Amino acid sequence: MAKVDRIRIYDVARIAGVSVATASKALNDTGRMTEATRTRVKQTAAALGFRPNAMARALTRQRSFTIGLLTNDTYGRFTLPVMAGINEALVDQGVSVFLCGIEDDATLAKVHVDAMLDKQVDGIIATGKRIDRRLPVDLADLPVPVVYAFTEGPADAVTLVSDDAQGARAATECLLALGRRRLVHVTGPEDFASVAARAAAFRQAAGSAAPVLFGAWSEAWGHEAVSRLWSEGPVPDAIFCGNDQIARGVVDALRERGVAVPADVSVVGFDNWEIVSAATRPPLTTVDMNLKELGREAGRLILELAEGKPVEPGIRTLPCKLVVRQSCGSKTLAAIQGEGTLQEV
Amino acid sequence: MAKVDRIRIYDVARIAGVSVATASKALNDTGRMTEATRTRVKQTAAALGFRPNAMARALTRQRSFTIGLLTNDTYGRFTLPVMAGINEALVDQGVSVFLCGIEDDATLAKVHVDAMLDKQVDGIIATGKRIDRRLPVDLADLPVPVVYAFTEGPADAVTLVSDDAQGARAATECLLALGRRRLVHVTGPEDFASVAARAAAFRQAAGSAAPVLFGAWSEAWGHEAVSRLWSEGPVPDAIFCGNDQIARGVVDALRERGVAVPADVSVVGFDNWEIVSAATRPPLTTVDMNLKELGREAGRLILELAEGKPVEPGIRTLPCKLVVRQSCGSKTLAAIQGEGTLQEV
Repeated sequence: MAKVDRIRIYDVARIAGVSVATASKALNDTGRMTEATRTRVKQTAAALGFRPNAMARALTRQRSFTIGLLTNDTYGRFTLPVMAGINEALVDQGVSVFLCGIEDDATLAKVHVDAMLDKQVDGIIATGKRIDRRLPVDLADLPVPVVYAFTEGPADAVTLVSDDAQGARAATECLLALGRRRLVHVTGPEDFASVAARAAAFRQAAGSAAPVLFGAWSEAWGHEAVSRLWSEGPVPDAIFCGNDQIARGVVDALRERGVAVPADVSVVGFDNWEIVSAATRPPLTTVDMNLKELGREAGRLILELAEGKPVEPGIRTLPCKLVVRQSCGSKTLAAIQGEGTLQEV
Repeated sequence: MAKVDRIRIYDVARIAGVSVATASKALNDTGRMTEATRTRVKQTAAALGFRPNAMARALTRQRSFTIGLLTNDTYGRFTLPVMAGINEALVDQGVSVFLCGIEDDATLAKVHVDAMLDKQVDGIIATGKRIDRRLPVDLADLPVPVVYAFTEGPADAVTLVSDDAQGARAATECLLALGRRRLVHVTGPEDFASVAARAAAFRQAAGSAAPVLFGAWSEAWGHEAVSRLWSEGPVPDAIFCGNDQIARGVVDALRERGVAVPADVSVVGFDNWEIVSAATRPPLTTVDMNLKELGREAGRLILELAEGKPVEPGIRTLPCKLVVRQSCGSKTLAAIQGEGTLQEV
């Protein structure tokens, strides 16, 4: 590819000191701007050797260089990493991401979707707080492409989710590789699809008789589970938790019982929510869902759809990675070295 | 006010099944839409008795019913409550809020601000993660109004912040009202304006000799501060912390030393970040900055500015409220009843 081919409209815009949309309009002789601006953009494009081909020009003409992001995730715990990833994928194309928080409010959702369409966004990415619930608004028949990331979409949509089963398997296999044999899984509410997928993968790796305790997504449930396990027995030598808050409760409860983590019991969490996982004593080994990468991929796909390229519909699962800190045991790094999904911190 | 006067363009839009912008264009005979749509909107407006006066029509004509929200708060901890408040203030007006996350990246900020201007937002609200730092983009000479909320703005701007001094005073006075006499303040880095304001208010209420320990915004610092206080003495009977993470570390460290909270030592946090404050054992009494109300106020002000109404520039401080849980002591409710800023949970 010749060098001039790699000059993008974004480069022209940046050097001419205008937005991408303005640059696009200037080059297409559309839009309203001063003649001085239009001339400057054209001269910049000429100086850089910017030569969009006919198809690119046709597409550019219709694009607003804006993507809408809808979410009902009030705490932003899942959505903000996704948005950061989308930004990373799109900023070099001069594309902006507009996030609208709709909570679980259908009226708010309708107002925001209408506003996005009025602003002629090139596409909408829907995201949320769980993969088995839909947002309170129907996006199926919009005039712009839609990608679903970390929320449920229609069967014929383009949907991105993290691979819960693979993540749970990586955590369980890490505990087995450390020599742990009495594994327990302490997790969230049974009606979450991700809870079922992680529990099934845990049992597949740890044995079908390995106990799974369902409860709440809270530290308090971690405390209660330890209390139940240690009063009923037999006591485990490894606890894989469904999220980091449960793991934090488990680690605190074990310390208060005089059970050493990781010497006596290894603990692994899920989410790598750093505010929890890094503050736990000892810091948590945990499964990271790679939400930023999920966002990058959603950004790439929505752009392809906006440019009219064919994208295969269906559910794409992206791998999780195990982030190793201290709660699983000091021998961990040696024991699981060479594992592809490992990230040492 | 007669009832018909209270019919808003939003009601017309909702009932006609179009966006507010489309309804506005239909009634103003501008924009592109099918004749059927334009007729339906006009008939709906007539049926409802919607009669915008001449000034409102003139203003409506120019408005996009969209507000841009810029933030560099990666975790969304401060921004998401602010956004929820803006949404609450604006959704009934049919106005949408578009959030752009810019981290601390000037390029990303420029791309997003340009995109917002291209989309002709009616105004921009800037927000962030601390009140004494500016966003990495100059918003001073934009063609649309700007309101700064929980981030630093120019001297002549409209800026909203929470009242750190009043919040710290409420916490300190609560501890004094409980009969505590040996108060200590354990807080964040000394170079934060909010840290200085809270520390000064603490000393004003607790006495100029009351110790203030500066450190990090972390649980680990809470642990270290307790270790230092209990090894150097004299030990306090009340600890007011600069945020909830420090308070969480303090409470955990005290429990592990066998010091009872709140029986022996009262603890109060700051932020009311529920993921931390509600999970602490015992749950934290803490100062809530009312960020949602700050967002509502920012929404109201940006709308007034967008409508061309005069808004006095300068810094507006909004009161914090003390949220009482269990970490400050059982006598609290009786002791401070009647206090206006109190919220019992």
